[in-house]
Amino acid sequence: MGLCLALDVMGGDHGPGEIVPAALHALTRHRNLELLLVGREQLVKPALAGLAPDLTRRLRLIHAPDVVSMDDAPSAALRNSKNSSMRVAVEQVKSSAAQACVSAGNTGALMAISRYVLKMLPGIDRPAICTVIPGINGHTHILDLGANVDSSAEQLFQFAVMGVELTSAAENIAAPKVGLLNVGTEENKGNDRIKQAASLLSGSHLNYIGFVEGNDIYSGDADVIVCDGFVGNIALKASEGVAQFFLHQVRAGFGASLYGRVAALVCHPVIKSIRRKTDPRRYNGASLLGLRSIVIKSHGSADRVSFAHAIEEALLEVKNNIPERITVRLEALLTGSHAS
Amino acid sequence: MGLCLALDVMGGDHGPGEIVPAALHALTRHRNLELLLVGREQLVKPALAGLAPDLTRRLRLIHAPDVVSMDDAPSAALRNSKNSSMRVAVEQVKSSAAQACVSAGNTGALMAISRYVLKMLPGIDRPAICTVIPGINGHTHILDLGANVDSSAEQLFQFAVMGVELTSAAENIAAPKVGLLNVGTEENKGNDRIKQAASLLSGSHLNYIGFVEGNDIYSGDADVIVCDGFVGNIALKASEGVAQFFLHQVRAGFGASLYGRVAALVCHPVIKSIRRKTDPRRYNGASLLGLRSIVIKSHGSADRVSFAHAIEEALLEVKNNIPERITVRLEALLTGSHAS
Repeated sequence: MGLCLALDVMGGDHGPGEIVPAALHALTRHRNLELLLVGREQLVKPALAGLAPDLTRRLRLIHAPDVVSMDDAPSAALRNSKNSSMRVAVEQVKSSAAQACVSAGNTGALMAISRYVLKMLPGIDRPAICTVIPGINGHTHILDLGANVDSSAEQLFQFAVMGVELTSAAENIAAPKVGLLNVGTEENKGNDRIKQAASLLSGSHLNYIGFVEGNDIYSGDADVIVCDGFVGNIALKASEGVAQFFLHQVRAGFGASLYGRVAALVCHPVIKSIRRKTDPRRYNGASLLGLRSIVIKSHGSADRVSFAHAIEEALLEVKNNIPERITVRLEALLTGSHAS
Repeated sequence: MGLCLALDVMGGDHGPGEIVPAALHALTRHRNLELLLVGREQLVKPALAGLAPDLTRRLRLIHAPDVVSMDDAPSAALRNSKNSSMRVAVEQVKSSAAQACVSAGNTGALMAISRYVLKMLPGIDRPAICTVIPGINGHTHILDLGANVDSSAEQLFQFAVMGVELTSAAENIAAPKVGLLNVGTEENKGNDRIKQAASLLSGSHLNYIGFVEGNDIYSGDADVIVCDGFVGNIALKASEGVAQFFLHQVRAGFGASLYGRVAALVCHPVIKSIRRKTDPRRYNGASLLGLRSIVIKSHGSADRVSFAHAIEEALLEVKNNIPERITVRLEALLTGSHAS
C-alpha cells in the first residue's frame, strides 16, 4: 500500500491558497504519495487546473461544504460540523482511506473531533500536543503544549512514553533523554504532582535525566521535555513573545539612523543565514499524540513552506507507525519488561 | 528620618567585589542615603579604605561571619544561619535600623528568612516574587515568579492586589491594567483555579482586562500580569533560554566567515545601542511582595551595575511605602469601597 494523507485544505488563516501549493510540492517530492484534499470544491478545483497528469492521478478532491472557524468552541465544532473539511479529513483516517491527516484549523476543535472519531490508544488517558524545538545543542521534543490544563502524575508519565517514541523515530535515538519541566533541578523543588511524576519516571526503564528548567527547552540537552499543557503553552508563547520583542528592537535599532540602515544592508547576507537556521516554518507540524491514528496540527498562520513541513511530519509518523510504537512501549513498561 | 538600606554583601556569585562598588555608587547618587553593609568584616573592610569622608559617614559595616550558600535548602538556611549576612541584613529591617534590605543570595532562603523574621501582611497568605519586564509597548510587572508552586484563586487575587500597588507607584499609573496569564483569551479557557481567579478579579474594583497569553508578557499591553509561581518561573526561564539561543545563533552567524566578522564590526554601534535598551541589568531587583517590610532580591549573577538597579528598586519601594499601600488597598477591596 502506498502512502495517503488527508489534508484539511480549508483550515488556518490562508486555506487552499497556501495549502494546495504545499500539497503539490509534497506530491512532487514523494513519488509514492497520494493526497486527499478535503474542502469546498468550488474553491479548491480552480487551483488544480492544468496540473501534470502524474500529479492529478495522485490527488483526489473530497467536497466538504462547511468550515470550522478559529473561534468555534470545541464542543460546538464536534456537534455542528459533521460536514466540515476538518471532520471529513479526520473521517478519512478512521475509514482507512488515509493513514494520517493534517489540519491548520482550530486546535481545540481538531483535538475534540480527533478524539471522538479516532479514539485514544489503550492505556493513554489524554492526548498531548508535541512539537520539536531547535536548541543550542540539538533538538528537543516538548509535550504537552496545551491539550490539557491539569495533568496528573500518571498522565505526565504517559506523555513521556509518547514523547520518547516520537523522538526516538524522528531523531533516530534509541533511548531519548527525558526531562521533567520544573522550577528547579533539586529533588525537593516543585509541587506534589511533579514530584510524583518524577518518582514514576525514575522507577521506569525510560532514560529519565531528572528535572529541567525553562531555559533547558532551548539548550537541547534533553531530547524530550514533559510538562502539563498549561505550563507548556505559556512557556512556548512567552518564547514567541521574547522573539518578537527582540525582532522589534533590532528593527528599531537598525532603522533609527542612516548609519543603521547602511549597516543593515551590509549584514543582510548574515541575517538571512541566521533567519534560515532559526526559521520556525522548518519546525511546523505538531503531533496530537495518544490517538489511535496520526493527526498533525499545522500552525494556523502557516504558509506553503510551513504547511509542507507539517506534511513531512505526518509522513515521518506514518512511516514509523508512531501510535503502534507507543502502545508497544507502554505495554512493555507496564509489564516491567525492558523495551529499548 | 533619612533613608537607610541593609545590603547582604556576601550574597550572589560575586559578593563584596561587585556589591560594595554598587553601594558606593548609590551613596554618591543619593545624598540622604545611608547603607548598612552586612558581611564578613575582613572581606569588606579593605574595599572601604580611602573613601571620601562623606561616603564613610553614611556607611556602616555590620559583621556577620556566616554565608548562606546557593545550594542550602530554605529550611536549613532558616535553622542554621542565624549569623549569616542574609539573616543579619533582614534583622536590620525587623529592628527598624534599615527600611529595606537587598540580597543577591539564595532566593528560597531569602524568602524563608524574610517570612520568618518580618512576617506577612494581614490578609496576604503567601509572598510573591515580582519583577518588571520590558515590552514592545511598555513595561509589565509580573508575579509570582517562583515563590509558590500551587496558588489558589484567592492567592492569585492577592498577587493582583500587590502587583497593582507596586506598578501604580513604579510607573505612576492610577489604575494599572491587570491580566491573568492563561492558555487562551476566551472565557472558557484554562483550569478551574484560573477561572475562579478571573471571577474574583472581575468582581473587584481592580482594572482587570481578562486573560492574557504567554506572548503578552513582552507586548507591554498589560501593566500587571498575574500567574502561579510554577508557571511564571518557567515562562521567564524559557524566555532567557530563547534569548540565549538567538544570541548563540547571531554569534555563530557573524563568526562563520570573514564577511560576517567585518559585518559585525560595521554593526557594532547599532548592536551596542540595542543591547543598551534590552540590557537585563536595568531591570534587576525583584520584590518579595506580601511581607510587612521591603525585601529586594537581586539576580545572583548581578555585577555592580545590576546590583545598583536592585538598590534603586528598594529605594522606590521605601519612598512609596509599598507594604502599607498593599494593606490599604486590600482592606478597601475587601470592604467593598473603591480605592483608586
